Amino acid sequence: MTESASPLFERVAIVGIGLIGSSLARALRQYGVARAVVGADRSEAVCAKAVELGIVDVATTEVPVAVEGADLVVLCTPVGAYAAVAETMADHLMPGAVVSDVGSVKQAVVRDVAPSLPPGVAFIPAHPVAGTEHSGPEAGFAELFQGRWCIVTPPPGAAAEAAEKVADLWRRVGSRVEVMEPARHDRILAITSHLPHLIAYTIVGTAADLEEETKSAVIQFSAGGFRDFTRIAASDPIMWRDVFLNNREAVLEVLQRFTEDLTALQRAIRWGEGDVLQERFTKTRAIRRGIIDAKQA
Amino acid sequence: MTESASPLFERVAIVGIGLIGSSLARALRQYGVARAVVGADRSEAVCAKAVELGIVDVATTEVPVAVEGADLVVLCTPVGAYAAVAETMADHLMPGAVVSDVGSVKQAVVRDVAPSLPPGVAFIPAHPVAGTEHSGPEAGFAELFQGRWCIVTPPPGAAAEAAEKVADLWRRVGSRVEVMEPARHDRILAITSHLPHLIAYTIVGTAADLEEETKSAVIQFSAGGFRDFTRIAASDPIMWRDVFLNNREAVLEVLQRFTEDLTALQRAIRWGEGDVLQERFTKTRAIRRGIIDAKQA
Repeated sequence: MTESASPLFERVAIVGIGLIGSSLARALRQYGVARAVVGADRSEAVCAKAVELGIVDVATTEVPVAVEGADLVVLCTPVGAYAAVAETMADHLMPGAVVSDVGSVKQAVVRDVAPSLPPGVAFIPAHPVAGTEHSGPEAGFAELFQGRWCIVTPPPGAAAEAAEKVADLWRRVGSRVEVMEPARHDRILAITSHLPHLIAYTIVGTAADLEEETKSAVIQFSAGGFRDFTRIAASDPIMWRDVFLNNREAVLEVLQRFTEDLTALQRAIRWGEGDVLQERFTKTRAIRRGIIDAKQA
Repeated sequence: MTESASPLFERVAIVGIGLIGSSLARALRQYGVARAVVGADRSEAVCAKAVELGIVDVATTEVPVAVEGADLVVLCTPVGAYAAVAETMADHLMPGAVVSDVGSVKQAVVRDVAPSLPPGVAFIPAHPVAGTEHSGPEAGFAELFQGRWCIVTPPPGAAAEAAEKVADLWRRVGSRVEVMEPARHDRILAITSHLPHLIAYTIVGTAADLEEETKSAVIQFSAGGFRDFTRIAASDPIMWRDVFLNNREAVLEVLQRFTEDLTALQRAIRWGEGDVLQERFTKTRAIRRGIIDAKQA
């Protein structure tokens, strides 16, 4: 496509230079999506590191400075910080600018960000469903979004042109884009991402509470399934705290279903009901096949 | 080592030619650990496939025929079948033969196998902590055990020489060997393997019960953590049914701890206790570091 040659945005401000922020900054430059990329982070060390690694053109601890003159601002901090960031930057946004984000919850970010933005600035939330268990600017890489989904969730009445530009950005960095309502996003991600992380944090936490001798054996023999959970449970604690605090209803609802199902299996183990176990364990295979067929394995 | 050149066993009978049985058969031949490998499986199709793929020298559906003249017999069926297999083969075992296995539980297999064996036949249970989510003889490969732990659990009074030979076998196919009591094995594996599988089966089962439209979205956006659980939950249902039925006490005990911890996190989410969430999510990182340091990541 000839469009790929010309940048979509003149100046993009990335607020929060962690795993996702730094990966996006790298991708925007590598794929020529932005003419300039400015980074903002509350940590001076992170700002220095981002410039040193060539992730951004310039970096600052001052959000108002970073967003000045930017035609796109992407919030990449933990979602619990959005409201304060939005308030801080509101008066400094360029008329016609687009504000977006990469947060793992979407209803709460609409609630927290939209009210602060001046008229003429569009808020188009997005969520790239991609990541690793590593954190920080050094962990980012431009290819992180290749072949992964990005879910764009324009609130009712959002400017269609702005939404299309944000979708284009994600396609240009290699993602497939799906547009959906914030509420539907939050329900689906509660199952595919939030509950799995909660469960992984729990089981690794249960192991962490064991007495020392058993704990070192657990580490030694972790290859039987446990180590996969430890990888998930190594994700950033602040980010995940904010996800659970901001998608409470959907997480509690699916957690309730999970607990009922687990209790049923617990009962089958206690009473030696092999047929119940076998039937449940067989049922899950169709889902795995679906994931393989959808090329998401 | 010059010992590597000469076979440890003349004739090894592998009973149950699934993922582990076929991998072990391949490894025994590839690394010159056995002069001949005989396979037994109750499925004629599996026997034919095992010979066709060159996994074993010969294969039969008759366990007594397979164990005739074998100086080592390795049970590789689901553990629920062990008692019947042991009874069937007992009268056909060669004096001085060693019987071993690869099951994921160890107290129950001592209970089920040892009483049937004639005097002069040693039972040395073992558990290679290795595997994939795939099943059947085609899924096996000789390198499966490389760098993985194998836990050998000789019952009290077991012949030391036989235990050492079984340990040697696993070292020769690339494993690191740890010797421990059956009861300790079952407690540790309940945490590192059995509970993770139960949890994974549960969460994927919870998703399988969702209405169709949501289910296809869950498959589409599974990259956020869920797909890792589906891989674990794709493991063989019969094998896992038997594991839970045969390590009931240890699994129920650790499941109880897990449920308490999950309930505490659920409560923290409901009441918005961010500090509790953050503290628990931070605590798990030490375990992950331990696994990386132990080179089991």
